[in-house]
Amino acid sequence: MVIVMAPEATQDDVEAIVELVATAGGEAFASRGVSRTIIGLIGDVDQFTALNLRGMRGVADVVRVSAPYKLVSRGNHPDRSTVTVRGVPIGPDTVTLIAGPCAVETPQQTLEAATMAKAAGATLLRGGAYKPRTSPYAFQGLGEAGLRILADVREETGLPIVTEVVDAHDVALVASYADMLQVGTRNAQNFALLQAVGAAGRPVMLKRGMTATIEEWLMAAEYIAQRGNLDIVLCERGIRTYETATRNTLDISAVPVVQRLSHLPVIVDPSHSGGRRDLVLPLTRAAIAIGADGLIIDVHPNPDQALCDGPQALVDGDLAELAAVMRDFPALVNRTLTVSPAMSTAATPV
Amino acid sequence: MVIVMAPEATQDDVEAIVELVATAGGEAFASRGVSRTIIGLIGDVDQFTALNLRGMRGVADVVRVSAPYKLVSRGNHPDRSTVTVRGVPIGPDTVTLIAGPCAVETPQQTLEAATMAKAAGATLLRGGAYKPRTSPYAFQGLGEAGLRILADVREETGLPIVTEVVDAHDVALVASYADMLQVGTRNAQNFALLQAVGAAGRPVMLKRGMTATIEEWLMAAEYIAQRGNLDIVLCERGIRTYETATRNTLDISAVPVVQRLSHLPVIVDPSHSGGRRDLVLPLTRAAIAIGADGLIIDVHPNPDQALCDGPQALVDGDLAELAAVMRDFPALVNRTLTVSPAMSTAATPV
Amino acid sequence: MVIVMAPEATQDDVEAIVELVATAGGEAFASRGVSRTIIGLIGDVDQFTALNLRGMRGVADVVRVSAPYKLVSRGNHPDRSTVTVRGVPIGPDTVTLIAGPCAVETPQQTLEAATMAKAAGATLLRGGAYKPRTSPYAFQGLGEAGLRILADVREETGLPIVTEVVDAHDVALVASYADMLQVGTRNAQNFALLQAVGAAGRPVMLKRGMTATIEEWLMAAEYIAQRGNLDIVLCERGIRTYETATRNTLDISAVPVVQRLSHLPVIVDPSHSGGRRDLVLPLTRAAIAIGADGLIIDVHPNPDQALCDGPQALVDGDLAELAAVMRDFPALVNRTLTVSPAMSTAATPV
Amino acid sequence: MVIVMAPEATQDDVEAIVELVATAGGEAFASRGVSRTIIGLIGDVDQFTALNLRGMRGVADVVRVSAPYKLVSRGNHPDRSTVTVRGVPIGPDTVTLIAGPCAVETPQQTLEAATMAKAAGATLLRGGAYKPRTSPYAFQGLGEAGLRILADVREETGLPIVTEVVDAHDVALVASYADMLQVGTRNAQNFALLQAVGAAGRPVMLKRGMTATIEEWLMAAEYIAQRGNLDIVLCERGIRTYETATRNTLDISAVPVVQRLSHLPVIVDPSHSGGRRDLVLPLTRAAIAIGADGLIIDVHPNPDQALCDGPQALVDGDLAELAAVMRDFPALVNRTLTVSPAMSTAATPV
Repeated sequence: MVIVMAPEATQDDVEAIVELVATAGGEAFASRGVSRTIIGLIGDVDQFTALNLRGMRGVADVVRVSAPYKLVSRGNHPDRSTVTVRGVPIGPDTVTLIAGPCAVETPQQTLEAATMAKAAGATLLRGGAYKPRTSPYAFQGLGEAGLRILADVREETGLPIVTEVVDAHDVALVASYADMLQVGTRNAQNFALLQAVGAAGRPVMLKRGMTATIEEWLMAAEYIAQRGNLDIVLCERGIRTYETATRNTLDISAVPVVQRLSHLPVIVDPSHSGGRRDLVLPLTRAAIAIGADGLIIDVHPNPDQALCDGPQALVDGDLAELAAVMRDFPALVNRTLTVSPAMSTAATPV
Repeated sequence: MVIVMAPEATQDDVEAIVELVATAGGEAFASRGVSRTIIGLIGDVDQFTALNLRGMRGVADVVRVSAPYKLVSRGNHPDRSTVTVRGVPIGPDTVTLIAGPCAVETPQQTLEAATMAKAAGATLLRGGAYKPRTSPYAFQGLGEAGLRILADVREETGLPIVTEVVDAHDVALVASYADMLQVGTRNAQNFALLQAVGAAGRPVMLKRGMTATIEEWLMAAEYIAQRGNLDIVLCERGIRTYETATRNTLDISAVPVVQRLSHLPVIVDPSHSGGRRDLVLPLTRAAIAIGADGLIIDVHPNPDQALCDGPQALVDGDLAELAAVMRDFPALVNRTLTVSPAMSTAATPV
Repeated sequence: MVIVMAPEATQDDVEAIVELVATAGGEAFASRGVSRTIIGLIGDVDQFTALNLRGMRGVADVVRVSAPYKLVSRGNHPDRSTVTVRGVPIGPDTVTLIAGPCAVETPQQTLEAATMAKAAGATLLRGGAYKPRTSPYAFQGLGEAGLRILADVREETGLPIVTEVVDAHDVALVASYADMLQVGTRNAQNFALLQAVGAAGRPVMLKRGMTATIEEWLMAAEYIAQRGNLDIVLCERGIRTYETATRNTLDISAVPVVQRLSHLPVIVDPSHSGGRRDLVLPLTRAAIAIGADGLIIDVHPNPDQALCDGPQALVDGDLAELAAVMRDFPALVNRTLTVSPAMSTAATPV
Repeated sequence: MVIVMAPEATQDDVEAIVELVATAGGEAFASRGVSRTIIGLIGDVDQFTALNLRGMRGVADVVRVSAPYKLVSRGNHPDRSTVTVRGVPIGPDTVTLIAGPCAVETPQQTLEAATMAKAAGATLLRGGAYKPRTSPYAFQGLGEAGLRILADVREETGLPIVTEVVDAHDVALVASYADMLQVGTRNAQNFALLQAVGAAGRPVMLKRGMTATIEEWLMAAEYIAQRGNLDIVLCERGIRTYETATRNTLDISAVPVVQRLSHLPVIVDPSHSGGRRDLVLPLTRAAIAIGADGLIIDVHPNPDQALCDGPQALVDGDLAELAAVMRDFPALVNRTLTVSPAMSTAATPV
């Protein structure tokens, strides 16, 4: 940590800081410059943060030097991690496809979508039983009835389930059905929910907040990790910018940037980011090429009748192309497409 | 609602839409242009939204014409509303000052801050017992102990309490102490929380999400209003932009824009937006001048020791100036400073 | 300047930097921390910048401590400046109104708009002869014919002229007519133009780039100041954000922030920022209240027929209200409305 | 074009618009809805734009239905174009690598960088003789001396030159040396410059403005095309967002989005977007995978001594990897790496 003093700061101001830092068990080294003095601190950053040095007289700025997250940090865990969802890996050696309908609407629609997902090479099924809708008048999801449909479809297809939980209160219920809990972009800083999923004993998929910096995203992951749960997969799904031609702006550089800062797997959502069917396959190719550990894609048997996000869902006609991409692109980045392990279809979690 | 067809759309495509709209009880009027056809729809917008017209073949765009919020809309309620918090009004005839410490730290600090608040002209006390912190290692608030401190301070000073609730699960507890529930920027799309505060029987202060459009903000208010609670005060606290010189960018134009779209009162937070002590008074003057119904300002007896957001808190030396602004500026916009009604200090809510 | 070394940096890496800094005549002080080493530099920042320290092995970050602009900096010139345009001051003791039509269309329209401007309290006339239009098919302005119209209107009304120059090549011509040269938001980083207006012997109004940080804005001013011209007025006109309810987002906090960093006057454009007639007067009140040194406002006798930006222009019916605001608000911030000095109507510049 | 009337609009308001539209030779069709009336217009959009319908009484919104650009539009020119620079194609069948030093510093440095570029598979040489620097104190480029160095290096290596021109006044001079003129992000709306390069008889590389929407970018291209020059290559180089972990945010989705809207080639700059050496190769893979027609990459023999943007330049050690990517990835998207045509090294332009 470095403190930048204002030009008009006095010697007394500097000494006050040196003393304060000492009370926190740290050391301060002042360098007097031509126009300013800077003070380097050695010691425990969290203790220094609690001192509120920015509020001290004469301080112009405080620059933190060490990262504010630890458990999820690559510094703490130099090898990249693999998270396993009922035997299906998401990690650095493979590319994992998660696919399914944005919302669980009916048993038939969900089963058809799951079949489409498998045909495209998916090894995990996504589907929303709880939908966070910006408008209170829009379809909010089937709730537990939707979870039961997903469980039935898992039994039929063998695909483990990834589904969103929107409230801390529902975590236990959702965890009793799902193999992986998803935290959505709008809940990126719902700290109660993050702590609850951290304690739920399931792998978590943490979507980036639509206006979250990479640092905020990793600190959200740290909330989960603090509860002892490091089975976290980060999902880049686009950020909010001034451009309106796409629903969000996919921040493709976040994949390598985060993989250097954190050991957690990073996947990409090419459906919600672009928001357009015709962008899904191009963004998928880009994601695999840049080293994403996986993709999460919307598919729907009849998007015309989808109750949410129909325009971005892939349809039957796209599946062959998606399957080809999933089959052919991973080799170019020295990976293989994840395939389903031999697995029981019983409801007991792995 | 208007549907814009792509140039290559066929007559069959158009007819498919006209038929679909009829099934939803609406009417469609096609205008064939030089290069495109547009279709105007008459009927229930929510029904049309459910049809997912954007996914129909040949559709280039769908433009919604009516506002997606109703209960909070000015169209529904032409006069501007006044929300009353234990007898203290927030509305179009007055300017109400809400002030207090960002976080409740100790009984003494909170009482001192409340005294500072009153001296500056405040009629409502803010103070955080639950603090949503981006870092899991930062001070998270005293919880219920903090609520008790606030209740004691209310008894001593007569100032009703505004405090943040961060989880739907805590709403009942917080509502048993607080006179007004605050929903923070990071929970702007925590729909479970919005619904819970909507049902809690208390006025609500809804902060704008840091990346929320005005429309999203009003739809969040609509979630609350749907539960029968229209005692909602909207709080503009700055939005996230590329500029880093200030903590957020205060969107001052949101005040008049929202006052034309919604009947709800709109207040401004000049503390969290600018993030700097030296910006609080300038932003306060601007807010009163533009017609804000109130301000919410951080004050702290010893910001050097504040456990959160010390750099933006006003101190004793600023109070005289704030009191002068609160006293002198409202008249210029034909308002008066809100003063405390005669009130009992019993804990029973008004 | 402070260099932050990466955790894996070696002692050799540190020494390489210390040596390099010495070659630039500076001194480096290394502080070895628990997890990292930081190096404080004392010396000439520009020399250090040229060393490209960020590219040295082991460097994680370089934090610049002193401001990159000097001539426009408040540090260099502690008192706030007043810029005079043909006797009309723009500075800290007054509030100056600049008003007129967005584009010069006809002699009659321009004269009527100038008359409206005077009635509202304006002491400077704005009008565009060269219009930078995003679409190449839109009206681009009358060019020199427009400048002649402005000159005639100046003679009739006594109002000095502020007009935009879009190309370095036109500077001499425009300067022969105008009293103040305006650089538009789209040319905020047109460095050739900045240098040309810096050398033109006229006061300059520098609009903030629509995505310019305050620092970039001040460095653009520094380009002008480097040519010996410190008669620069900065104009905040809104920045680009994700919000689409307004044309731009007026960054009202930029006024006090910049006034603390630079001695140059800062004015506000409430017309192009909000982009709506009904926001002009509210934003004007906010701007005066926050301490802006002036306003620049669009007026038009017949906005229905305006060739550009009609929707934001004030009309006759608004003038009385604008005149009242200009008359009544400045006193609240200890200023007076600028009034026209006794002036000759000859074309010779002051 | 569609006009949305406000709820309180009267029948007279509607008729006023219908009449006005008729004067512009168009037709208006009013659809009266439950809460609003909408009016569809048939006719010449440019004429309608000139009418300033938004300013008419009762109008809430005007939605433009057809694209504002024509010459660059895919609608006008259904096949994707190939632009040829002295025999080197940039288009849909190939992937073209443009590489070289960010700034031309010395003959030796430029020749070494050009050699590096060729080794990596480049068929065009980039190098800046005129550098637009945000700070007036930073190295601004060698000017004509830099152009001469580039010409010499072209003679030695056979690589045609792409170089930036920053002012309309310099276009003739730069065009006398360069094979392709580059317009930088800061000049994206320097309309005088756009028109000048449009008339210069050279292919143009048009970088996206750092806050330009795709529509604004294409309209900037339309300025160039209006002068008869359709040899325009669009370059996505990242947009400005709130995220500071990267210098800009590469908008990878812009590649497919623009390729559907315009027939012009689209390339990607992975150097200035990420701003970090370690992101260049990942972003390059993503760009090729998503279908970019080319890449433009910074290389430098000694980035430690680079006078600008050293931290993002690739070095010798990276070349083998870049060459491998350029060789292996294009096949996956059915393209081939562009190779140099047999060409004379004479200075006469093709």
